[in-house]
Amino acid sequence: MPYEFTRERRVAFAETDLAGIVHFSNYFRYMEETEHAFYRSLGLRIHPSEGPGVGWPRVDVQCDFRAPLRFDDVFEVRLLVREKRRKSVTYAAVFRKLDGARTVVARGAMTVVSVAFDPSTGTMNAVSLPSDFDARLEVAPDDVLAAAHAER
Amino acid sequence: MPYEFTRERRVAFAETDLAGIVHFSNYFRYMEETEHAFYRSLGLRIHPSEGPGVGWPRVDVQCDFRAPLRFDDVFEVRLLVREKRRKSVTYAAVFRKLDGARTVVARGAMTVVSVAFDPSTGTMNAVSLPSDFDARLEVAPDDVLAAAHAER
Amino acid sequence: MPYEFTRERRVAFAETDLAGIVHFSNYFRYMEETEHAFYRSLGLRIHPSEGPGVGWPRVDVQCDFRAPLRFDDVFEVRLLVREKRRKSVTYAAVFRKLDGARTVVARGAMTVVSVAFDPSTGTMNAVSLPSDFDARLEVAPDDVLAAAHAER
Amino acid sequence: MPYEFTRERRVAFAETDLAGIVHFSNYFRYMEETEHAFYRSLGLRIHPSEGPGVGWPRVDVQCDFRAPLRFDDVFEVRLLVREKRRKSVTYAAVFRKLDGARTVVARGAMTVVSVAFDPSTGTMNAVSLPSDFDARLEVAPDDVLAAAHAER
Repeated sequence: MPYEFTRERRVAFAETDLAGIVHFSNYFRYMEETEHAFYRSLGLRIHPSEGPGVGWPRVDVQCDFRAPLRFDDVFEVRLLVREKRRKSVTYAAVFRKLDGARTVVARGAMTVVSVAFDPSTGTMNAVSLPSDFDARLEVAPDDVLAAAHAER
Repeated sequence: MPYEFTRERRVAFAETDLAGIVHFSNYFRYMEETEHAFYRSLGLRIHPSEGPGVGWPRVDVQCDFRAPLRFDDVFEVRLLVREKRRKSVTYAAVFRKLDGARTVVARGAMTVVSVAFDPSTGTMNAVSLPSDFDARLEVAPDDVLAAAHAER
Repeated sequence: MPYEFTRERRVAFAETDLAGIVHFSNYFRYMEETEHAFYRSLGLRIHPSEGPGVGWPRVDVQCDFRAPLRFDDVFEVRLLVREKRRKSVTYAAVFRKLDGARTVVARGAMTVVSVAFDPSTGTMNAVSLPSDFDARLEVAPDDVLAAAHAER
Repeated sequence: MPYEFTRERRVAFAETDLAGIVHFSNYFRYMEETEHAFYRSLGLRIHPSEGPGVGWPRVDVQCDFRAPLRFDDVFEVRLLVREKRRKSVTYAAVFRKLDGARTVVARGAMTVVSVAFDPSTGTMNAVSLPSDFDARLEVAPDDVLAAAHAER
């Protein structure tokens, strides 16, 4: 479905810290990896090597943590399109540890904006979503978002 | 002042991504580095090598981004204690690029909770702030927080 | 075969730098991830949550780079056991981009030592390889190593 | 002296792993940070925002580890120019923990090559060192290199 995507991942050793758990900054990398896998699944390419420079900087990100992930844990990131605006997309994310209990370990959100790079000045300006992104990405239905939000 | 701390930092090459800007996940590392420098400035030690295992996992973090940081940019992170509860502390952060304009490039927030590690079970349980943290950390006055929040 | 293991991987966005290529430090993370996947494939567990603390610090690592990897590139890491000593294992690694040409983009090596953590002093001391590691890990035959070394 | 540079650094929390020590991949980041600080100290700019794209990819890197660094440890990286060729520079690095004993905790080496980016093809080609780099960087005298190599 073009409004959500789920990706499985295993915690790498280098992603842990001395507390024995995944360093919290990595959850944002996990979210971004899932976003990119979602685009691939829809045939969308970001950062094409040819053509004008389009980018997807994040403008607002958030994550809250309920339980830790540890080395070698297998988990999934479920990403849902929560909102689509003219120049930006907002995702919600649910992180679930893939043990028997399938515990929700974290929840996050991320707003990304499409920008054009101006190589002459080095600046980035927000632009309308590329037409293929706008055409393929759908906003998740309210009941799906509500159910995802309520998951334990 | 035991309710705020400012730390200067330079963007490292490895912190950039192919868009030529600091990868957003690093802002959370910058916040945490500043938090730890704040503790050092107050004579507080986290993760002492001896004694019972106390940790400071993050339970909720957020950051929004207004302008990019690039390789070699010098910036400051100003951290303010926004709230202190029995088992947790919430920080607000203002990231400012140290060029002539001193532009605010990002703002963040971070709630950290003090936990005790139980080595026999590998679990972490929230506990009251260690007494020295509780005694030294002060909550920033409302007008200071409001002024920081209004900075451009 | 218990003397080599190959793992496929895709370059994540956060692993690139402003030069548009994978930051070189990540090749060491790729090697370590492959090493751990190798152990899993043999039923070997590192860092068990229970039992005495055994670790596998690296004592010598090396990598040379022939061609860059870029965002979204799919590549493989082939890891071979080059040498096994009483307390250490040395791996050779060949990184190959999985495009039509299957170009070798990098080669590395890594010597890891098994250590026991002494919680009372916080020190690590080299110890004999755990018996299950010693029993399962085999050294690659000379001709396999020579062929891997000669690959272009 | 334009053939060596020493930089002090403190271990950040996010640089540690579950073994309680600095993840080995970070030593390469420390080396690169020191290299860039060295260039700054000589008035040399890499990755200028204007002008033709010049880069400094690494072609061969190595590090061996004698003792761990832990969270909050203060250490220094001493970088020496070991060799200068027409298109490349090789550095040696000595990592020393800044405790009373000033223990050497690691040693590394890194060969970097100057390349020109061809934006039309996305390729990088090795080119002669930029003239200002060639003029300012000196090779360390043999006795200095030998003494650094012999340090304990």
